[in-house]
Amino acid sequence: MSIRVAIVGPTGYTGLHLIERLLRHPGAKLTYLASARKELPDIAEVFPRLAGRLTASVSVCRPIDVQAIAREADVVFLGLPHKVAMTYAGPLLDAGLRVIDLSADYRLRDADLYEQVYNNPHIDTEHLGQAVYGLPELYRESIAKASLIANPGCYPTAATLAISPLLAKGLVQADNIIVNAASGTTGAGRSPKLITHFPEHNESYSAYGQIGGHRHQPELEQTLDQVAGEETSVLFVPHLLPIDQGILETIYLQPTANDITEEELFETLERAYENEPFVRVRNDLPNVKYVCNTNFCDLSVRLVESGPVTHIVVFTAIDNMIKGASGQAIQNMNIMFGQDETAGLL
Amino acid sequence: MSIRVAIVGPTGYTGLHLIERLLRHPGAKLTYLASARKELPDIAEVFPRLAGRLTASVSVCRPIDVQAIAREADVVFLGLPHKVAMTYAGPLLDAGLRVIDLSADYRLRDADLYEQVYNNPHIDTEHLGQAVYGLPELYRESIAKASLIANPGCYPTAATLAISPLLAKGLVQADNIIVNAASGTTGAGRSPKLITHFPEHNESYSAYGQIGGHRHQPELEQTLDQVAGEETSVLFVPHLLPIDQGILETIYLQPTANDITEEELFETLERAYENEPFVRVRNDLPNVKYVCNTNFCDLSVRLVESGPVTHIVVFTAIDNMIKGASGQAIQNMNIMFGQDETAGLL
Amino acid sequence: MSIRVAIVGPTGYTGLHLIERLLRHPGAKLTYLASARKELPDIAEVFPRLAGRLTASVSVCRPIDVQAIAREADVVFLGLPHKVAMTYAGPLLDAGLRVIDLSADYRLRDADLYEQVYNNPHIDTEHLGQAVYGLPELYRESIAKASLIANPGCYPTAATLAISPLLAKGLVQADNIIVNAASGTTGAGRSPKLITHFPEHNESYSAYGQIGGHRHQPELEQTLDQVAGEETSVLFVPHLLPIDQGILETIYLQPTANDITEEELFETLERAYENEPFVRVRNDLPNVKYVCNTNFCDLSVRLVESGPVTHIVVFTAIDNMIKGASGQAIQNMNIMFGQDETAGLL
Amino acid sequence: MSIRVAIVGPTGYTGLHLIERLLRHPGAKLTYLASARKELPDIAEVFPRLAGRLTASVSVCRPIDVQAIAREADVVFLGLPHKVAMTYAGPLLDAGLRVIDLSADYRLRDADLYEQVYNNPHIDTEHLGQAVYGLPELYRESIAKASLIANPGCYPTAATLAISPLLAKGLVQADNIIVNAASGTTGAGRSPKLITHFPEHNESYSAYGQIGGHRHQPELEQTLDQVAGEETSVLFVPHLLPIDQGILETIYLQPTANDITEEELFETLERAYENEPFVRVRNDLPNVKYVCNTNFCDLSVRLVESGPVTHIVVFTAIDNMIKGASGQAIQNMNIMFGQDETAGLL
Repeated sequence: MSIRVAIVGPTGYTGLHLIERLLRHPGAKLTYLASARKELPDIAEVFPRLAGRLTASVSVCRPIDVQAIAREADVVFLGLPHKVAMTYAGPLLDAGLRVIDLSADYRLRDADLYEQVYNNPHIDTEHLGQAVYGLPELYRESIAKASLIANPGCYPTAATLAISPLLAKGLVQADNIIVNAASGTTGAGRSPKLITHFPEHNESYSAYGQIGGHRHQPELEQTLDQVAGEETSVLFVPHLLPIDQGILETIYLQPTANDITEEELFETLERAYENEPFVRVRNDLPNVKYVCNTNFCDLSVRLVESGPVTHIVVFTAIDNMIKGASGQAIQNMNIMFGQDETAGLL
Repeated sequence: MSIRVAIVGPTGYTGLHLIERLLRHPGAKLTYLASARKELPDIAEVFPRLAGRLTASVSVCRPIDVQAIAREADVVFLGLPHKVAMTYAGPLLDAGLRVIDLSADYRLRDADLYEQVYNNPHIDTEHLGQAVYGLPELYRESIAKASLIANPGCYPTAATLAISPLLAKGLVQADNIIVNAASGTTGAGRSPKLITHFPEHNESYSAYGQIGGHRHQPELEQTLDQVAGEETSVLFVPHLLPIDQGILETIYLQPTANDITEEELFETLERAYENEPFVRVRNDLPNVKYVCNTNFCDLSVRLVESGPVTHIVVFTAIDNMIKGASGQAIQNMNIMFGQDETAGLL
Repeated sequence: MSIRVAIVGPTGYTGLHLIERLLRHPGAKLTYLASARKELPDIAEVFPRLAGRLTASVSVCRPIDVQAIAREADVVFLGLPHKVAMTYAGPLLDAGLRVIDLSADYRLRDADLYEQVYNNPHIDTEHLGQAVYGLPELYRESIAKASLIANPGCYPTAATLAISPLLAKGLVQADNIIVNAASGTTGAGRSPKLITHFPEHNESYSAYGQIGGHRHQPELEQTLDQVAGEETSVLFVPHLLPIDQGILETIYLQPTANDITEEELFETLERAYENEPFVRVRNDLPNVKYVCNTNFCDLSVRLVESGPVTHIVVFTAIDNMIKGASGQAIQNMNIMFGQDETAGLL
Repeated sequence: MSIRVAIVGPTGYTGLHLIERLLRHPGAKLTYLASARKELPDIAEVFPRLAGRLTASVSVCRPIDVQAIAREADVVFLGLPHKVAMTYAGPLLDAGLRVIDLSADYRLRDADLYEQVYNNPHIDTEHLGQAVYGLPELYRESIAKASLIANPGCYPTAATLAISPLLAKGLVQADNIIVNAASGTTGAGRSPKLITHFPEHNESYSAYGQIGGHRHQPELEQTLDQVAGEETSVLFVPHLLPIDQGILETIYLQPTANDITEEELFETLERAYENEPFVRVRNDLPNVKYVCNTNFCDLSVRLVESGPVTHIVVFTAIDNMIKGASGQAIQNMNIMFGQDETAGLL
């Protein structure tokens, strides 16, 4: 029997990628698109790619009517902005739906930290405690039983998968982690801005934002703290690439011991992910193009001696829209409903 | 009186950019293009951009005839591959020409190190000792008197300008320097290869080569050693951007003292470059697009506390073809011939 | 029961796209990759995207052993260059396999025309006569029964779908057809060349080749002649776009009658394709991005009066790699084996 | 003595390109930037490329004070939107300045046609009559004496230069001209919009707007009518390219006589432009990349027989920002002030 799926807030890029993957999912069926807009949009007009691919009854968005959604769906993806998502999650959960939130609203477990990072008090602390961080490679069992999934941010997904196994095994220092990250522009959303205006961004490359102040940094540290069993410190420096989709992070770590070998690093990563369908440890250097439009995370590692210092450099690539958002959300759905975890994703 | 200019090996991208800048240079005149090819090319056919912009007598390359070049030119730019450049520099110098070599052949002062890095013995140690490293911001006075200029590599140009002032003042540790670099594809030359084949490289981003083994790393360390007065260690990690021109380096440094401030870092950079026509210390974050087709190097710096660790992050952007190659070569020529240093470059 | 599929010559872009679609095809299974190369490649090394997605026994190419292929496969896709494809098609057919040839070798029914266009005599006229031109929207019934499919060229696919209905109904003149075409670079193949070297092609746009002499023009005319029942004349002018995938053709036609209306043109297209799963007649203007990575052909039409002349402008967009090559090949396979025509393609 | 130059409305892309060319112009000096914005912008903050390249007194915009401008400048470039430009041109002219308007306000000589095309009455018919259409290759002598220049649109510049010589000589039909045009995105201006949002426009290509209704079509026809001495009809179909700068137009013409030859077409173009510094008639096919950041217009032509029909195809490429806007404006200024026409443009 098919999982019946609703999307609340489908008009962003995460909505587009959810829909495209659901359309080819053998065990799920899109039944309800809900929008808060006054003029309810036809999703096939919002995204001309989708013309003719959805039945008219689904294609035209309906209001966010919790009871109606509960009648027609088993699970809801929230494609809403943060601050907005947490106003809908509670009622949808209370109506018996399972909820996968693609916003940041349930990612930070500590409501005070959320308020500090997002400049806004958390208004649904009731459900915050029950949210499961939806990174299957770390929390698969909790995800299976969860009602509410906080789908991870794109940058933390790539970084966590890269760093966790090394940290868990105590191979790298917890308090000196540098993540040099580069992302495609879909990560910046669909609202036109000068920074992503084509003639400004094409042929460009730079870091952006307040260096050291990106909102994904505390999210990443929260998971790494848990993995390490101690407080971790990350310097996160994001850059914007003139491409559509993809994140590459070049991560600089310091070994805890002098006699570490590159083989040991590879083995640690390979063992951690040997049964994972979506993590590929590879010898060659990850490239955003190799993972574009896939749910894969590609990892590689190098040990480099530079004078008196030994550096560990981990490379990690995902498609920010897929493993970094919509693909991972569907992976979570598959786990929650006992389906093949890769359904719709290969 | 105009400087008479020859280019030996003008058919690569450095040749194109030299020619375009010389065409608008008020005090220099291109008189001789020399090629080692059997079929002597017309440069306006090699680069269709140049059609109609050169007189026919200059446009069609002539053989590399040292005496003829010496009769018609005062200075020669070598746009040849490394290993080849050093076979021509000597004879041209001996014929009384001043030589600006854009290859790597005279950048490393130590012939043994050259052999190790370039897998080839140095065959012109005679002139190696007299070559001046053509980074005007550091070596302007020597450049003025030099006969032979080793025009710096693109990556080292950006990194040296970023790191030197901080190192000279003892603000940063010399042995823990991480340079995360990203370059446009013109840096890879004009010979078609799979890695720069459009459908492979478009929408792509990755690190490349042997991490820790890039040939520009010893070149960079050579200059930094001199600036620091001690041995420096650089971890250099290059990435390839899907753009034509531009290098951005994000450089991670460790302070030597705990009480360093961001203001002090800015002041140090500003003071170092206050009279430099081509270095801009800026508050916003450098972007390769801001320097594209210019001879500028844009710098900025951030001090970030991350848990117990304080990081200094320096951002440096140049156009790899201009300040990273042909523009800097012309800047060197201007200095050598007592012209306005910015002639042809603004 | 799954269709067992072999690919002979899988190392080009058509091979990659065939494999990616077969991997998600519910009723087909890739069993054999065959290569003529001396060193048999692992396809996951040729295309790093494919790492971990194929079992090792399939991933590593085997020699082109006709009997072995016949034992392990029901159908063979030929991803070989033209001239080479026709040396293998015969033996594979004789061994009982059904063959879908993605090269140009069986597209032109007239062996003399083939020789003239491809500068090479046709060496398999025996099977040429039985080849069916694999454009499902026109030849679905023949495809179902065919042993040998000549998979159409990318440009003719887009143009034929755009022009045929109007020509069939006698609405447009047969002898004054202008096809202004623009294609992404995957259409130029995977061998590095100067024209598709990134720094040459990025930020570029131009027509290419001998205007009026493109090999796809006679292929297009052959089909249009049959549709029109008279001789047609096409001026075909191809341009190269700085993108990976996609073809847009802007087609200029002259009406046969003065009283034609835009509505009539739309109706003609809509009626022709109302039951077609992969042709979308749309009011807005087709964009290569809307069809990228899909098997759709998007069509729209405008009637424009310009002084005394009335022009019909038809816009047609496909992904040159999908509907223009690998997707259409799989659509043909689905038809040949009685599967859902859209399997693996949505 | 230097021409003193003001720019009113410098914050768009035409402003940027005017400034960059004026900075290297040996006989002109930027003295005044004027903005209608309430908060007067520093142009070096608007365009980070310009940091450090203008003296502070010029860099910070001042109000549009006609008398002050008249005191400090000899000529004014208007970089304002249409409808706004014509509110300032009159007062500036009356204050004794010469004015070069880069908007569309003075391009159409007929005020009624202007009203129809721009949905707005013309409010400065007084000066409309004295405006000279600033296409130097056709109107150089009038430009030299003009007080008010209507700087041509980008698309008409490329098309007029391509078609005029053939039309003037009666070689092509006046009423059946098809202009298939493709432009980079700077032509769409600097205000962020969905159509030029990076993730929407990157890897995209399509026609846009109302086909047959582009505002540049009557502008083009106005000039061609004059050249032909009869009424001309143009079908103009614009497309948007995923690049920054450049226009390529592929123009389809019908010969007036059957015995026309390709040589005759080339000769006609070559003779028309043999003394022109910025028009290059070339044998190879024009490419936007060959003219990027130059003031050149590249032309080529092909004669193609297609069944019973003979087609003339003219290819024309310019940089929409340079020969299509700011470069041509400076070329006009050079002519008006008796300077070398190429000053600042080579």
